[in-house]
Formats: sequence, structure tokens, C-alpha cells
Amino acid sequence: MIPRYSRPDMVAIWSPETKFRIWYEIEAHACDAMADIGVIPRANAEAVWKARDVTFDVARIDEIEAVTKHDVIAFLTHLAEHVGSDEARFVHQGMTSSDVLDTCFNVQLTRAADILIADLEGLLAALKRRAQEHKDTVRIGRSHGIHAEPTTMGLTFARFYAEMNRNLRRLKTAREEIATGAISGAVGTFANIDPAVEEHVCAQLGLTPEPISTQVIPRDRHAAFFATLGVIASSIENIAIEVRHMQRTEVLEAEEFFSAGQKGSSAMPHKRNPVLTENLTGLARLVRMSVIPAMENVALWHERDISHSSVERTIGPDTTVTLDFALARLTNVVEKLVIYPDNMLANMNKFRGLVMSQRVLLALTQAGVSREDAYKLVQRNAMKVWEEGKDFKTELLADADVLKALSAAEIEEKFDLGYHTKHVDTIFARVFGT
Amino acid sequence: MIPRYSRPDMVAIWSPETKFRIWYEIEAHACDAMADIGVIPRANAEAVWKARDVTFDVARIDEIEAVTKHDVIAFLTHLAEHVGSDEARFVHQGMTSSDVLDTCFNVQLTRAADILIADLEGLLAALKRRAQEHKDTVRIGRSHGIHAEPTTMGLTFARFYAEMNRNLRRLKTAREEIATGAISGAVGTFANIDPAVEEHVCAQLGLTPEPISTQVIPRDRHAAFFATLGVIASSIENIAIEVRHMQRTEVLEAEEFFSAGQKGSSAMPHKRNPVLTENLTGLARLVRMSVIPAMENVALWHERDISHSSVERTIGPDTTVTLDFALARLTNVVEKLVIYPDNMLANMNKFRGLVMSQRVLLALTQAGVSREDAYKLVQRNAMKVWEEGKDFKTELLADADVLKALSAAEIEEKFDLGYHTKHVDTIFARVFGT
Amino acid sequence: MIPRYSRPDMVAIWSPETKFRIWYEIEAHACDAMADIGVIPRANAEAVWKARDVTFDVARIDEIEAVTKHDVIAFLTHLAEHVGSDEARFVHQGMTSSDVLDTCFNVQLTRAADILIADLEGLLAALKRRAQEHKDTVRIGRSHGIHAEPTTMGLTFARFYAEMNRNLRRLKTAREEIATGAISGAVGTFANIDPAVEEHVCAQLGLTPEPISTQVIPRDRHAAFFATLGVIASSIENIAIEVRHMQRTEVLEAEEFFSAGQKGSSAMPHKRNPVLTENLTGLARLVRMSVIPAMENVALWHERDISHSSVERTIGPDTTVTLDFALARLTNVVEKLVIYPDNMLANMNKFRGLVMSQRVLLALTQAGVSREDAYKLVQRNAMKVWEEGKDFKTELLADADVLKALSAAEIEEKFDLGYHTKHVDTIFARVFGT
Amino acid sequence: MIPRYSRPDMVAIWSPETKFRIWYEIEAHACDAMADIGVIPRANAEAVWKARDVTFDVARIDEIEAVTKHDVIAFLTHLAEHVGSDEARFVHQGMTSSDVLDTCFNVQLTRAADILIADLEGLLAALKRRAQEHKDTVRIGRSHGIHAEPTTMGLTFARFYAEMNRNLRRLKTAREEIATGAISGAVGTFANIDPAVEEHVCAQLGLTPEPISTQVIPRDRHAAFFATLGVIASSIENIAIEVRHMQRTEVLEAEEFFSAGQKGSSAMPHKRNPVLTENLTGLARLVRMSVIPAMENVALWHERDISHSSVERTIGPDTTVTLDFALARLTNVVEKLVIYPDNMLANMNKFRGLVMSQRVLLALTQAGVSREDAYKLVQRNAMKVWEEGKDFKTELLADADVLKALSAAEIEEKFDLGYHTKHVDTIFARVFGT
Repeated sequence: MIPRYSRPDMVAIWSPETKFRIWYEIEAHACDAMADIGVIPRANAEAVWKARDVTFDVARIDEIEAVTKHDVIAFLTHLAEHVGSDEARFVHQGMTSSDVLDTCFNVQLTRAADILIADLEGLLAALKRRAQEHKDTVRIGRSHGIHAEPTTMGLTFARFYAEMNRNLRRLKTAREEIATGAISGAVGTFANIDPAVEEHVCAQLGLTPEPISTQVIPRDRHAAFFATLGVIASSIENIAIEVRHMQRTEVLEAEEFFSAGQKGSSAMPHKRNPVLTENLTGLARLVRMSVIPAMENVALWHERDISHSSVERTIGPDTTVTLDFALARLTNVVEKLVIYPDNMLANMNKFRGLVMSQRVLLALTQAGVSREDAYKLVQRNAMKVWEEGKDFKTELLADADVLKALSAAEIEEKFDLGYHTKHVDTIFARVFGT
Repeated sequence: MIPRYSRPDMVAIWSPETKFRIWYEIEAHACDAMADIGVIPRANAEAVWKARDVTFDVARIDEIEAVTKHDVIAFLTHLAEHVGSDEARFVHQGMTSSDVLDTCFNVQLTRAADILIADLEGLLAALKRRAQEHKDTVRIGRSHGIHAEPTTMGLTFARFYAEMNRNLRRLKTAREEIATGAISGAVGTFANIDPAVEEHVCAQLGLTPEPISTQVIPRDRHAAFFATLGVIASSIENIAIEVRHMQRTEVLEAEEFFSAGQKGSSAMPHKRNPVLTENLTGLARLVRMSVIPAMENVALWHERDISHSSVERTIGPDTTVTLDFALARLTNVVEKLVIYPDNMLANMNKFRGLVMSQRVLLALTQAGVSREDAYKLVQRNAMKVWEEGKDFKTELLADADVLKALSAAEIEEKFDLGYHTKHVDTIFARVFGT
Repeated sequence: MIPRYSRPDMVAIWSPETKFRIWYEIEAHACDAMADIGVIPRANAEAVWKARDVTFDVARIDEIEAVTKHDVIAFLTHLAEHVGSDEARFVHQGMTSSDVLDTCFNVQLTRAADILIADLEGLLAALKRRAQEHKDTVRIGRSHGIHAEPTTMGLTFARFYAEMNRNLRRLKTAREEIATGAISGAVGTFANIDPAVEEHVCAQLGLTPEPISTQVIPRDRHAAFFATLGVIASSIENIAIEVRHMQRTEVLEAEEFFSAGQKGSSAMPHKRNPVLTENLTGLARLVRMSVIPAMENVALWHERDISHSSVERTIGPDTTVTLDFALARLTNVVEKLVIYPDNMLANMNKFRGLVMSQRVLLALTQAGVSREDAYKLVQRNAMKVWEEGKDFKTELLADADVLKALSAAEIEEKFDLGYHTKHVDTIFARVFGT
Repeated sequence: MIPRYSRPDMVAIWSPETKFRIWYEIEAHACDAMADIGVIPRANAEAVWKARDVTFDVARIDEIEAVTKHDVIAFLTHLAEHVGSDEARFVHQGMTSSDVLDTCFNVQLTRAADILIADLEGLLAALKRRAQEHKDTVRIGRSHGIHAEPTTMGLTFARFYAEMNRNLRRLKTAREEIATGAISGAVGTFANIDPAVEEHVCAQLGLTPEPISTQVIPRDRHAAFFATLGVIASSIENIAIEVRHMQRTEVLEAEEFFSAGQKGSSAMPHKRNPVLTENLTGLARLVRMSVIPAMENVALWHERDISHSSVERTIGPDTTVTLDFALARLTNVVEKLVIYPDNMLANMNKFRGLVMSQRVLLALTQAGVSREDAYKLVQRNAMKVWEEGKDFKTELLADADVLKALSAAEIEEKFDLGYHTKHVDTIFARVFGT
């Protein structure tokens, strides 16, 4: 996590203050539940809520941890300083540190997912708006980087919308999967704590009780979560690379927004670099690199080892913060992307109608010309375009053999862009609904 | 994909014969749809079905491909040899190779998913049976590889069941995601083919039409698919490592089944190696290694490039074949795992009751002894066990200071294993339902 | 490993025949060494060489393995069928299977490295030739895909040469690292076999004795080896992406060679797809995906477990075969790449001299114009080029304020391409030597 | 990078202060070189050194950057505040930001490598000391986690030494590879700056001039660097897992040092968790996760894009800081590892001599007993040990059939541990030299 690629709301989820606040809520709700089932006095449970409005003192907790060498104990000691030693004496009873740590981590991941869901929804809104705006902006479709057939810029945005919408569904599933809590004791047997405590705490925190935990919540959930973030990052890269291609000097069908004040813009007007989407390409790698470690974390020894912990301390914050930033940046890029429809048309016509050669070929065969002859007819005109810089349609209209098979009007029709855009509405209806 | 880690049904999905069969069905159904909307004559569509029972001749197709340098054209040429050149002349009309290739690939992945789903269901059945069999087989729970508190072997199986059940849900989602088809033409605009063709073909093949494709089906679907396989593989590793630990000489709480005939078993009875689960550990890595390339495949240039293709030619078969084999092997290991309950008890008692020290400590404080004094009482008896080989309970029962706080019966009760297993039924109900 | 991405020499290294041949040599040389130190009779060692010219019968060995369930024993049994049971009775004495398997694997990797080294040398020769051919072929250098300053195509080839030359050095180092053998017995203590045997076998096979092995050769060597292949693959991707960019329709500075017979080339002359380099982009991912598993293989349990084996059975052949194919394909692409110098110049001049704006800016300040004024002077002329399609140099020459600072000749000089290429010889001398 | 897994010296390399200091040195040395060749006045070059002892004000630079939106310009502006605007006017002349940024990054990586080299040397010293200390401490060697034949703890340390020594060589190579600098201008042609400047700056900073750069230093160097760190991390994991296994309750052949004051140690003396090596297992994953992104960074578009930058801003510091911490932690673990030779012997004898069964089998066949008969003799005695808890040697000595082949003394000899350790000196000489 580095400041220039971070946004405050996501960063806040991973602050010590937030962590201690979640720990506090877990402990306080657990006390309530224990009082409910008569395991501890009601008064002691109520006393814990005296700290309801406290912002815990991170420096003080660190100070205590320096002595106790144990973060949860340090926090509990500090909590007792607020609640009173005697009143606090039942706090954490029958629980293990992991009950607090793992449940807290999942609360944090769930909240992170909520931000990411909102990010995706914002991105989807931007993509939808730009799709509708450019529904009929014709550009050349390319396979292998080579001109193929016409499409529209709206379809480009629409497919990114559809892809990100799938990511939204995936993320919601991943969020649901990670939203579990566990208060099940040293090896998950509830030997020292009643399952009712887990149920109450989870309900209060918006979590589902983990059906079976050991001391830890099983890490396949986290692996699935980070894998989902990796897929989203890959889709970000997909859009980023499209923009980078559109902005390259020879293509110039679009540019990232360039604020008036940004230095160098007008003395070297050609030198506007797609630095935001290049950056997004790199950020995608950073998000993706958490996937394999998260999967390696699944296989813990017996009921638990702690090999996963250092990995999660890093990828928990870093990956969610980076993805949040990347989604926000991408949304900004999409919203402000400067589109150049004229350049799109100019690019499409770079080879003066040659992109229609396949359609002409098809029309000739449908008009009864043999495949071989049709090929020769198209070929000899195409070569004049390619080698001599002629215009394809003009050449065809001047080719007597072609005119035997196709009327001038039929030839003209083959160059009608409407032929290629006739199903755009159908596709939009599929993607955006009616 | 190597033979020793392959099973025939999954391998068959990836055979050329299967591929050509699927291509054939796509083309034939497409002709039907084109006839339905009047684009081609019904007779020509019907003629294609003459090849309904043909097993296509792979060698012949290869022979043609050697000339045409194009696999789909080679297939179509061969198809015409069966159907008749004239009858076949409308086959593939308006379609591009990718319409066939991508739809076929998703059919293959969907079928692969069906096998993997069945594999997982088989594994779940085995885990459930073993869980119930060993529901009350007590063993020591371990954190960090160190004895913690008692649990049961049934809980171990139950948590693997719960984890694999989550994987089943994930896989079903991934299967649904990958079960799409596209017949949308050169850049996905349906310029040369009606969307109705896509709808019909998909319906016949059990697929959903891809809402918006380019020439290819978007690769985020595949990334999500392979990521899911990676999570499943990580869970396989999780179980494999548990078995490997249980089998190591000093633990010996379980062994992979060792057939009577396997050489060396009885002259070196200690030397039964957990080679199946070690192998599964490696296979998990092989499955997992497809995840990042599948994600790197998402960002294609413009409407498509073909960088993803070589990756998929490899990971499509290799990853599904390996995972299928691994799941089957794991199921076999689970079904036949030889469990040694006596060794479990012996291990638990390695330090003569010391695993109960925490419970005694808690009991002392609850009986009113101060935390510090309780600690000292437990400590002095624990050290006798640790250093002099005494029995913990015996020592406690002989310690007058302990007896001031706890009666002999109370001390005895602290060593009752039932304390630790009292919620096993609750957990089983959560995992397996009532 | 799939046939279309494989070449026979590399495939042969991984054939069962080659493997058994290497096993045979290990065993035969080991017998010699044991005879040398008097551990077995000389006659028995000599007898083993009776099989010197035998091509081992893979089917027969498989047949035996089906019974013995052990590959090395199956081979030894078959070897005895050639040598005679009695004569062969000392073969493999004191050795373990891993002595044979691991030493063989390293022989195979070493031979694979030799092919890859030759591949790289071939690629380097091609890059060098193309570099010299196009040393002075000017093209625009691009940062961020945006025109920056002129460079030459020769420099592009030269930097790929320098990069691949580093890869050659890395590969030679990796080859040296992997060229070790071990004949050290069950846990590497030489309890049952004298170190002299290891020394002799290694010397005969061109290997260095592993200084300390356990039962296996340590896997950090293999991790370093596959990591090196991953770096090479990434450099392949680097070159591939350059070619793909050069070939895209709007750039068209180069094209992969397109044989006259390849269908569709002339009827759609614009539609020549860079499929070879797209394929290389995918192959690079396939090579790279072996790196993490190879690293995960390093941590074996105690003296060895067999988790690495399934990984290596796959990545050993697949990764080396894929990389060999990729290097050969890339060499072919480089050798035959069709370069379009005219298009390079046309692209450079797309914005009629604007790429020189920074140089003009610098010249103005050096001529005493304040930075702010210089900027304004450049800006107002640049905008005429950008917005009105004027020529930059013409505008400058017509701008009285500019002419106050720079003479017409000085302005002309700023557009001299020789300014940018003056150090090409220096760089070539650095890269290729004098 | 998180504080608890960081050490100050490595962190300092990545501080803004260090970065600006290196930028300063690059610029100042560049001015000297430009003065040397007469491009700028000597006085101006000398003036830059007025800032020689300045600690640059990071906050002030940030303030300027907030306006200029460009980090290098902000730094240069601040530098002029120290040197004087007029004196500083030739600073950075003809250079691009990347000349500074990339050269600085390589200086940082080189310094990081120096620390890591020192770390490795420290680890090697610890491993060597422990190896010599426990050269003759016999323990059972294990394959597949199952007892195989005796080895010594010294050999375990020695093989870790040999592995880390290879890592040291790899790291030195990687350091040498990354120790390059480039001052070659916008696209690497030296159009605006003489190669002599690059040569001087590199010489002053202990770097080699990059033979051919573009605007950036080629990223295959960085890929090789991070791949090397990934291999080292994998070796750390290898040692960590050995320790974790040794410490697990049932094995208890070693324990991480446990300071007297650490809570809970004596009331639950069995509960000493190998948390340091578990942590190292996780840290290894964190280091390794940088390898693939570093390789993905190699393929930049044309002369450069900036996709690599965000990746490097993260993995540059994070990976080196984590690896430095991990090596230091591992060294500490190795130095203080508490070894339990008695437990090693007890473990070895868990099955009362059965680990010698293979040696007895061999001895019987060498004594002329047929393989089948020898197997039966060993088997029947082994089963008594396995099933009835008898002692293997005792049984053999009481077996008349065995005694027909082997004398009592010969049987006794088979249980001599010296047989297994006789080549330890040889191996030590190979590893540590004479």
C-alpha cells in the first residue's frame, strides 16, 4: 500500500483504530451473549459497553504489547483500563485470540468488499453512460490489431460493462463467502464457549457463523476472495490496454483527459501520454500477485498454523487498497475519456475501403460467381488499392466483370455502415436490458 | 497431461474426435436456425444431419489441414465429403472460425465441469461417511503442530467436507459462467449472421448466448473458471497435508491404504510412504499454475488477438485432466484411509495429561484462586510432568494447595474428554444438516 | 507439451527411450566404479556393457512395471534380460532409485539447456544481422506509445540482441547449476555406496557431483533453472509485442513474413495477422507458469518427499519444449520480418515535424530566450500544426519572433535526423563489440 | 512493507531522503562530466556541490510537486533553492527523468543486494557453526516423513549451508546484473547528452553503463533480480519447514529458542509454538509473489511505457525489506535453535531397530541367502516388532535361520550407527572445504 495509490476510506478499514473498534465490538457482543445464557453476570456485560464511545489509544496498546508480547492481551488490558479491571474480568472468557482476529479480518474484508462493490457500480454507471453516448459512433473492429469489420465505440463500452457486471456478481458472491465469523475456541470444538455466543456476535456484526472452524476460519474462503479480486484486476487491465491502444499516436481514437494546467500539453500537443491506463496495467499485476499466496495459505497444518498471517497482513490491506484505487482511477478515465469519432472514421478508411473486401467477396459468390472467380475479382481490385493507393469502391464500380454480377447500387450497398450496426440495439438490449 | 495422472472420461473430452463432433453439432444446428429464418434452404440444413452418426476421420482432416493451413476449413471440407459439396455449401455461412472454436471450447469446459462436479460429489460422500464413522474418535487438536486441546477425527473429516462443499458451490457457479456460446461473426456485430442462429445453437447445446462477444467470448469467464479450479486444488493440498502429517512415523494416526501385494510392506512395515497425498500436493501446484496465465489471457487487444489460444490449448485439457485425477485419487485416499484410534490416544497422552493444563488453570481461577497463584500451582505440577515424566493428574491430586481449591472429583472432571466433544453433534448438524 | 508447439530434438530428450538410455549409462558407469574400488567383480561390470547398443523395449518395461509397481525395478529387471540375471546381480547395488532418477533428470535438463543455448545463439545471430541491416533505418522512438524522438530500427534489434545475450549468460549459468548428479544412497550419507562411485558416474556423464544430497538433489537448483527460463520467456514476449505493435494496421512498420501461398493474403491484403508473435505472447505465459511451482518444490519434508515429482514430470518436458519452440519461432520471425522503412518515415511525420518541438524549445532557450517565452513561441506554432494541419518547420520559419532567436539554417538543423543517430555507432560498438 | 517485518537499514534505502540524495549525486556527477567535456561551465558544475551536505527537505519537495505534478522537476526546483537558480540552470541538461529514476532505482537495488549478501553471509556463518556443533549428532533420516536410515543433524545444517551458499552466488550475480545505470536521453540515443556523461556518473556511483537503453533500463535485469530473491525465499521456506517439523509435539527434536520471560511457557511447557518459522513460511510467499509481476514488467511497449512503475514502487521496497527481515529472523532461529539429541535417538528407536531392516536384508543376500528367503527372514522378525512390540535385533539374534547366515557379531554390526556416519567428514569437506 503506497499513498499515491490509496484512497482514505479503504485505508481506514485497515487502520489500528478500526481494528481495535471491531475487536471491541466482538468482545462486547460476546459478553452480552454470555450474559444471555447465564455464563457471566449481566452487569459485567453491560459494563463493557461503557467503552462504547471510546476511541482506543493505539500508542497505549502498543506500549502494553511491548510488555505482554501479545496483541489481543494488550488490547484487553487497555480495555480494562476503560471498563474497570473487575468489571472487565469476564471479557474474552473461553475465547482464543483467533476468535477475535479471524472474525475481525472477515469484517474488514467484508467492508472492503462493500467499497469495491460501490466502486464497481460507479464504474458500471460510467461505462453505461459512455456506451449510450457512443452507441452509434462507428469505428473499425480489429482482430490481431488488424482492421477487420466496422463496429461501434458503444459496443466497446458495452462489452466492458458486461464484463464488469459479471465482476460485480462475482464480487458479491465473494463478499457473501467471506462474511463469516467464528467464536469456537482453541481447536473449534466450543469446549469452553457456547455456540450461542458465536451466533449472537455474528448476527450483530452482519456475519454468518462459520459452520465448522478449527481455531481459524478456513482459508479457502480467502483464496476465493482474492482470486475474485484477481479476475477484476484482469478486467481492469483489459480496459486499460484498449485505451492505451486508442491513444497511441498512429491510432489516436481517444485520449485520457488532460487537464488544461498539465505542463507540456500545448507545446508538444502530440505528447499526451496514457499514463493513467499504463499505471492501471501495473496495478492489475499488483492485485493479481496476491492470488497465489492466498491459495498457498489454504493448506494449514492440522487445526492451524500461522503461516498465513504474514501474508494476510500484507495482502489484506494492499490488495483491497490497490484495487479500490484502480477502480476509481479507471472510472475517472472512462468518464472523461476524450473520444475522436473523426479519427475513427479516418482510421477505418486508411486503406480506402479494403475492410469491405470480405463482404464484396461474399456478395459475389451469393450472386452466383464461383468462389475462385470471385476471389480473383476481389483480389485484382484489392491489389490496386493496396499497391497503388486507389479507392476500393471506385475500382469495383469500374470493373466490368464485377458489374456483371453486382449492380452499382449493390456495390454501393456493400459499403453501407448500417449493415454492420443493425444489431447494435439488440446487443444493447441484452447488455443493459430493455 | 501425462497418462499416469489422467482418467479416460476427461481425456476424451479433449480428443480431436470430441472436438470435431462438437464442431459438427454447432454447424448443423446453425444450419437449422438459418433455415428456420429463411436464410438458407431447409433441404441443405437437413442434409447436414446425414453426417449425424459419422465419427469424423481425424487423419483425413489433418491431411486437409496440411494443405489449407486452417483447422476449421479443413473440417468443413471433410464434412462436405460426407454431406456432399453442393448440399454443404451453406454450412458455416456468415460465421467465423471463432464462433465454432470458442463455443466448442466452452462446451468442453462445461462438460469438464460436469465431471469435476461428479468428482466432488463422490469426494463429499466419502468424507461424510468417514466423518460419521469417526465422529467420536478422539484425537488431539494441534495448533502450530503442537498439541492444543482434544477434538475428534470426525470433525477433521467434517471440516474437509464443509470446505469441499463450498468448492462444489463455487464450481457450479463457474460452470454456469462458462456455459455460454457465441455465433456473432467477425467482430461480434452479427453483421453477417442473425442473432437467432446463436440463440438456437446455444439452446441445443445447453449454453446461454454470450450477451456481447467480439469475435471471441470474453476471457474473464475463463479466468474465473480456472481460478475456481485453483481454489479446489488448494483444498486438495489442505487434505493431502493433513494425511501426510498423520502418516509420518512419529505420529502414525493414519495411513494411506497399502495393498497386500505392494512390495516391501511387511519386511519394512514402518516404511509405508504417503506417496498418494505427496503426489496430490504436487498436482495441486500443477492445477494452480494455470490461474495466472488464465488471468493474463483476459486483456486481449481490441476485438481479439490470439495470444490466449496457446495457453488454453494447454491449460484447457491439462488442468481439468489433472484436477479430475486428483479428486479421484483423493476420494480413494479418503475412502480407504486406515485410521489408528489407539495411536491417537497415545499421542494425546504423550505428555501425560499436560494438554489439560489450560483447563485446570481456568478451573482454579474460577474457584477463586488468583490468576498468579493459579499459574504457579499449574506450573509446578506441569514442570514435574515435563521434566520428570510424572503424570499430570496424579500430581495435581497429590498437591495439597490444588486440593484446597478443587476437589478430587473436580480435578478428575477436568480430564474428561466428553467436555471437549459435547458440541460435536451441533457442529455435525451445521455441516451435514439434521 | 502439444505437438504443434514442439520440435523433435527437444521432445526426444524426454522420450522413455532416452530416459532408459540415461538410466542404463548411470548404472553401467556405477558398476565400473564399483569394480574399480573392488566392491563388485570386474566381470560383472563389464557384462553390463553388453547392452551398450540396445534400444530398450519401453513396452516390455511397462509390462514389468505393471507387476512390480516400480519403474526403476522394472528397468533393472529388463536390463537383466539383456545382460543375464547372474551377471546383472550387482547392478544398482547400494543405490536408491532417486540416485538414478535425479541424476537422469539433471542430464535431461542439461541437454535441454544445450538445445536452448543453441536456440539463443541462433536468435542472436538473426538479431545481429537485422540490427546491422537496419542500423540507419530511422523510425520514431515512442514512449507510452506516443511519438517521442527519432531512433533507428537497428537500435531496436540491437537492444533485443543485448537482452537475449544477457539471457544467454543466465542460461549458461543455469545450465552449469543444474549439471550435477548424485549417487549417495537412501538419505545421502553414502552408507551403502562409496562417494567414488558418484564421482565416476558424474565425470562420465559430464556432471559435477552434488556436494551434499539427501536422497534427492536439492531443488533450489531446479527453481533457479526454471526461473531463468521464465526470464527468457519474458524477453520473448518483449520482442513479440514490439512486432505486434509494428504490424498493427495503423502503424504497419513491419509484418511477419507471409508466404505467397497462405490463403486470403491478396484478396484482403490488409489482413495479415501477426499470429506468430501473438502465439509467442501466449507461449511466454506457458513457460512462465512453471516458475512458481518450481519454487514451491524447494521445500521438501526432511530428507525428501515426492511432492515435487508430479510437477517436474510436467514442467520438465513442457517448459523446455515450449521454450525451444518459441525461440525457434521467434528466430524465424526475426529473420524474415518484413520491414517498411517508408512507413516508418511516414509515421514519424504524422504530425508534420511536431516530434521536433522539444528540440526547438531547447534551442530557443539556449539562444537566450526565457523559458516562458520559448514555450509560448513553440506552443503557438505547435497548435497550428495540431489543429490546422500545418507543417511545423514551415511555421517556425515564418514566425518572426522565432527568427529573432534562431536563423533559418539553425531551424533547419533542428530537423536534421543525423542529430539523433550520431551515437548509433557508439551504441553498436557497446553491444556487438568493435 | 509492514513495520513488524522490517529492519531499519533496508527501510532506509527506500526512504525519500535516500532517493533524493541519490538523485542529487546523479545530477551533480552529470554536471561534472558535462563540464569535463565542455558542454557546461565548470563553475556551474562546482556550484551544484554546494549542496553536498544538504539533507533535502522532503516536505518542501512534496509541496513543489503538488504544483508541478512532476517529481523530478520538483526536486530540481528545490535543488535550485540550495544552489541558486542561476548556478543550477544547467543541471539535468539533456537528460530525461528516467535517466535519474532508473539509475537511482538500480542504485537502491544494488544497495539492497549488499545488505542481503551480508544477511546471507551471516546466515551461512550460523549454519556452519551449528553444522560443526552437531556434525555427529545422529538422527533418523526420513523420506516421505517416514523413517529411512540414520543421518546426522550436522548434515542437515550442512545441506542448508550448501543451499544458501548457492543462493549467495546467485545473489552476487543478480547484484552485478542490476548494477547498471543509464543517462541516455528520451529514447536512449544520446541525442542530447554525450555518452561520456553516462560513463562518468556510473563510475562515480559504482555502476556499469547500460550498453543500450531506450529511455529505461531494460527490465529483464529486474526480472532476473526478483526471480533470484524468489529462489532465496524458497530456500528459507525449506529450512523453516524442517524446523517446524522438528518442533511438532510428536517429534520434538528441536525447538525455536523460547526466552524465559515469554508468557505461558512453563505452565504449558508442551505449548511452545514454532511461530518464527511459521512466519518465515508466510514471508517466503510474500517474497515469491513479486517474481511474476517482475517478469510481466519486461515487455514494455516500444521504447518504454510506464506500466512497470507502480509494480516496482511496491515490490522494490516490499520484497527486499521482507527478505532482509526473513534472513535475519532465520539466522536468529538457526543460531538459537535448541536441539534435543536424546529425542533424536528416541525417535530413531521408535520401532525398536526396524530402521535397520533393509541393511539386514542386504546382508543376508550378500551372505548367500536368496532374495526371497532373505525377505521372508526379515519379514517374520519385522512383523514381531511391528505387531508385538519386540526388539528387532533381539529377534534376529534369536532366529536360528538368520544365525545360519549371519553370526551374532555380524548382526550386531548391522546396528552400528558408525556405518551411516562414516562419510560425514567427506561430505563436510565438500561443503565447507578442508
